[in-house]
Amino acid sequence: MELKGLNFIGNELSGKGKEMFNAINPANNQKILPGFHQATEEEIQVAIKKAEDAFIIYRNKSGKEKALFLETIGEEIMKLGDDLINRCCEETGLPETRITGERGRTVNQLKLFAGLLNEGSWVDARIESAEPERKPVPKPDIRSMKKAIGPVGIFGASNFPLAFSVAGGDTASALAAGCTIVVKAHPAHPGTCEMIAEAIRNAVKRTKMPDGTFSMVHGISTEVGMTIVKHPLIKAIGFTGSFRGGKAIYDAAVQRPEPIPVYAEMGSTNPVFILPGALREKKEEIAKGLTASVTLGVGQFCTNPGLVFYENSEDAKKFKEKAITSFSEVSAGTMLTEGIKNAYKNSIESIKKYDGINFLAEGKPGEGNNGTAYLIQTDASSFLSNEKFEEEIFGPSTLNVISDDKSELIKAAKNLKGHLTATLHATEEDLKNYKELIEILERKAGRLIINGYPTGVEVCHSMIHGGPFPATTDSKTTSVGTLAINRFTRPVSYQNFPDEFLSDELKNSNPLGIWRLINGEMKNAAV
Amino acid sequence: MELKGLNFIGNELSGKGKEMFNAINPANNQKILPGFHQATEEEIQVAIKKAEDAFIIYRNKSGKEKALFLETIGEEIMKLGDDLINRCCEETGLPETRITGERGRTVNQLKLFAGLLNEGSWVDARIESAEPERKPVPKPDIRSMKKAIGPVGIFGASNFPLAFSVAGGDTASALAAGCTIVVKAHPAHPGTCEMIAEAIRNAVKRTKMPDGTFSMVHGISTEVGMTIVKHPLIKAIGFTGSFRGGKAIYDAAVQRPEPIPVYAEMGSTNPVFILPGALREKKEEIAKGLTASVTLGVGQFCTNPGLVFYENSEDAKKFKEKAITSFSEVSAGTMLTEGIKNAYKNSIESIKKYDGINFLAEGKPGEGNNGTAYLIQTDASSFLSNEKFEEEIFGPSTLNVISDDKSELIKAAKNLKGHLTATLHATEEDLKNYKELIEILERKAGRLIINGYPTGVEVCHSMIHGGPFPATTDSKTTSVGTLAINRFTRPVSYQNFPDEFLSDELKNSNPLGIWRLINGEMKNAAV
Repeated sequence: MELKGLNFIGNELSGKGKEMFNAINPANNQKILPGFHQATEEEIQVAIKKAEDAFIIYRNKSGKEKALFLETIGEEIMKLGDDLINRCCEETGLPETRITGERGRTVNQLKLFAGLLNEGSWVDARIESAEPERKPVPKPDIRSMKKAIGPVGIFGASNFPLAFSVAGGDTASALAAGCTIVVKAHPAHPGTCEMIAEAIRNAVKRTKMPDGTFSMVHGISTEVGMTIVKHPLIKAIGFTGSFRGGKAIYDAAVQRPEPIPVYAEMGSTNPVFILPGALREKKEEIAKGLTASVTLGVGQFCTNPGLVFYENSEDAKKFKEKAITSFSEVSAGTMLTEGIKNAYKNSIESIKKYDGINFLAEGKPGEGNNGTAYLIQTDASSFLSNEKFEEEIFGPSTLNVISDDKSELIKAAKNLKGHLTATLHATEEDLKNYKELIEILERKAGRLIINGYPTGVEVCHSMIHGGPFPATTDSKTTSVGTLAINRFTRPVSYQNFPDEFLSDELKNSNPLGIWRLINGEMKNAAV
Repeated sequence: MELKGLNFIGNELSGKGKEMFNAINPANNQKILPGFHQATEEEIQVAIKKAEDAFIIYRNKSGKEKALFLETIGEEIMKLGDDLINRCCEETGLPETRITGERGRTVNQLKLFAGLLNEGSWVDARIESAEPERKPVPKPDIRSMKKAIGPVGIFGASNFPLAFSVAGGDTASALAAGCTIVVKAHPAHPGTCEMIAEAIRNAVKRTKMPDGTFSMVHGISTEVGMTIVKHPLIKAIGFTGSFRGGKAIYDAAVQRPEPIPVYAEMGSTNPVFILPGALREKKEEIAKGLTASVTLGVGQFCTNPGLVFYENSEDAKKFKEKAITSFSEVSAGTMLTEGIKNAYKNSIESIKKYDGINFLAEGKPGEGNNGTAYLIQTDASSFLSNEKFEEEIFGPSTLNVISDDKSELIKAAKNLKGHLTATLHATEEDLKNYKELIEILERKAGRLIINGYPTGVEVCHSMIHGGPFPATTDSKTTSVGTLAINRFTRPVSYQNFPDEFLSDELKNSNPLGIWRLINGEMKNAAV
């Protein structure tokens, strides 16, 4: 498709602003055509007003209607064909196989939510029957279910130009919840954003959703995003990106006259613990697996394992040798943007200056925006005395933290802040001996992994891609998987409502056949 | 029991501070003995450290163990007998029947959570089986459930000295979730707080819960509470009280280096809409019912209906006459504290000065800390032009807002902020004609009531005692009913965990027999 460089103000294309910008191909730092119009204040206002007007209609769409809409978005994305893949590769420097895979993930994510809506039990319907004869006071009939929260602002990430961008997890879950959305396009892949926006617009039209269900605005200035965050009609924010960006949005949102929830996934360092038995039995396998996980996609994943903890031993030394070999063989790869490459380079230069830091291995060098892999080492006591070492370095590097013994390893674990994931490489015996460690990590991360790698986030019902601050601004939620829908809802009780004025989910006859908690018992039958 | 006026630092009684205060009997403004020791900074620090240490043990208690603990708290409260009732009446000015009823509610609330824990499905266990053969990548085994969030700070309210205080809904739900707690006692009923704290301490000992599971500190200075809110080991706050108090806590919590969730229920004005058919058919009944609801407990309920909307008509005039008669007959009652009485008086004096305000009726006058009932009137256009009119007046008054027609009524409804409840008095025909109004109110309140009154909050599975800001600081939650437990949990995923290292809730054999979402299907069987 031919790109126009315009904003999507509901179904209308609009380019009233004079501020223009271009996508840059990170492989050669060349501008890519066309130019994109940054949205004006007025355009954003209109988009949000449309989102509010559309919400009044869209919130009442049935699960089946919303499911069809989501599936249609997926179909329209597939229809974009190679145009999408080519533009996305050009804008991000990511290889075709990766983008094709990510497209599959994005479409499957939309299908997963469509399935959730078709099944319908996700609303957590609860019914308590009246007891008019109860003493001292009669018990009323009370029912509750989750309802859509209102228009939502969504900020995509640069590192997943499809799965965490315009039609990513935040969009899928917010639309599934019954919310209308205003998306801030990521300026690193505006052409990809436009294509996906066009797919969503076509789906809006094909399934007759109200104009304003979806809008997308471009911007390189932070003002564009902040206008969305601060707007009184916006009732929640979804964000994936840097700590700095997410925290700024959070701070603005909690200071509004009406504070709103911000679901910011701000990345983490994803500690990995290699326990003695695993170190003894699987050192080679883990050294290779870890290298692959650290350097996958040039290390540009939120779940990149940037911290590896183990105790000093002969096995540890051998493991380290193998990891050095693996890291030395890693080719440099093009990073997403020149800015990200520079930030990575600066972080690496900066950490080099600290006492107790030792660079063990370096991958193959690269030119331009290529990122080189680094294997770095420190000791647990240095780690414990320097907060900086826990901070995310966005790129293909990892810091091995070597402790003298088990108690120092436990101490380092206890000292950790919040992360998206925590991983253990362990034998059965290790797990028995390190039960305390598992319990500590349960309080530090949203997902615990045994004998695997944190990269590769399964999109399913039991996935928690979240975790305590600073990994996210709301540890009670996930931005991947079906539980993500809860973020954009709130529960509402209905007392003494005549059956016909209740939503289908709460009607006595249970016309949707969903699971409900009826007088404390889970049932999928009529009342 | 003999009161000691001390703080509960875990199981230790402590009174290191020199700052002392007394409870005041609001019926005669006399000090009640003994004096209470405000907690020192050090005592609070120790309590929180104990809560953290206890959490490491308490979080792993089984549902059945926690259930027994909650039931034992209830037993110990009942054992306090008339001592509790007498002291509570003396401190609050509330009548014996009310306090006896509230005690029943408090004990039943503990039993309800015990039942939830014994049943066990509340953890929302989810299991997705591995598919090692899946292409292009194998699917791992992933399971998730809710886990306790950490030590919690709890602030009780003055208006429910039992049900929203030391062993109230926040305590019951936080302990049920597996969190340890540090309660800030309410200085208006410190003796009642001490008795309940003693009951909880006895239950901690009897059921062998770790020392530090429960602490309670006294304070008349806001510093005591703020020390809890700002402490890095505290992971969430439960609060019921004024907007000013709740908002100050929220602001402090979101500005912490690690922001934490604040569940503040800050009251509301609970709009009631009387639609034309109901006004025609049930004017007398509604006038009486509304008067009773407004003046119940001297109007000191969060769900007090402080705003009544209807359209001008002959029926409206007759309804008003009947309401005037009802209000004129209401006796004044002792309010909770002199401060509350003065605030009520000042609010009434203050609203008198506004244009468009007309006092229709006044209840019987009262002396000392007695609060007099007021029926106040304004027109919808004055209401729309003055934000002040929507603010809660804590006490037995209500503001009738009379609109010229349906469209003005709808406009007033659209303009509302967030409330705990919204009520409709309506015939079937009214409900059909005012569908738009119901939809507007669904976005304004946590609970919608038809042909009833908002006072009387049922403690059950489907109760939402919450609502959009400024009614609460988190519209996605409730502070009454079993859903309140979710506030003190966060979900955690477990990837590739051997069965024996999983919690019972997630084990293949389903030893607890709970409902789980297994590969997308709700089942209470083994995997």
